[in-house]
Amino acid sequence: MVVVNLEAKLKMFSDHWSPKIVASFNKHDVMVVKVQGEFIWHSHPDTDDFFLVLKGNLTIQLRDGDVHLGPGDLYVVPKGVEHRPMAAEEAHLLLIEPAGTPNTGDVTTASAKEAI
Amino acid sequence: MVVVNLEAKLKMFSDHWSPKIVASFNKHDVMVVKVQGEFIWHSHPDTDDFFLVLKGNLTIQLRDGDVHLGPGDLYVVPKGVEHRPMAAEEAHLLLIEPAGTPNTGDVTTASAKEAI
Repeated sequence: MVVVNLEAKLKMFSDHWSPKIVASFNKHDVMVVKVQGEFIWHSHPDTDDFFLVLKGNLTIQLRDGDVHLGPGDLYVVPKGVEHRPMAAEEAHLLLIEPAGTPNTGDVTTASAKEAI
Repeated sequence: MVVVNLEAKLKMFSDHWSPKIVASFNKHDVMVVKVQGEFIWHSHPDTDDFFLVLKGNLTIQLRDGDVHLGPGDLYVVPKGVEHRPMAAEEAHLLLIEPAGTPNTGDVTTASAKEAI
């Protein structure tokens, strides 16, 4: 495996809400993503959802309140918990999910995850 | 779960090579650690070893060469691969390992992992 520089990987694309796989770890995909605007409400029945903010600010709406994250903030949405990520301005995130997990929680609406 | 600010967690301790658990994710411990000097050669027979450099520089010696990491660099040592992390000056890392994994690969020499 080669060294993965997260900033360099983030310079390789500009689309939003489309995670890019940068490494594999214990059958999980390690991904970077750029987000802006509102995602959809969703949950993952079989996995926790790992968020680390690399740049910008992210709000994760939960049914019982909002969580506000800035750079260097980490948050794990427990499996099965409904959430909606949103970012008023572009934010860059590190995500970790089991390989093959649909980003919307639903394979019919999920983005394909490209390795970069 | 509360928001975990990695920098704030790193300010809570000063010892080296003693990972502190800051979150749980899919039965893995998410940890921060401060390192300086040389660790020991070891491997983990059952798990990949996830390193993300938050501050400073880290060298991971492998039997077939050294890997040099700086801030924002991520590297996964595959399971079973012998490695020795070292840092000439203090470096701060994010680590992820299955809960209960000994940091030396050997329960008899491992540091206890405290949650902070």
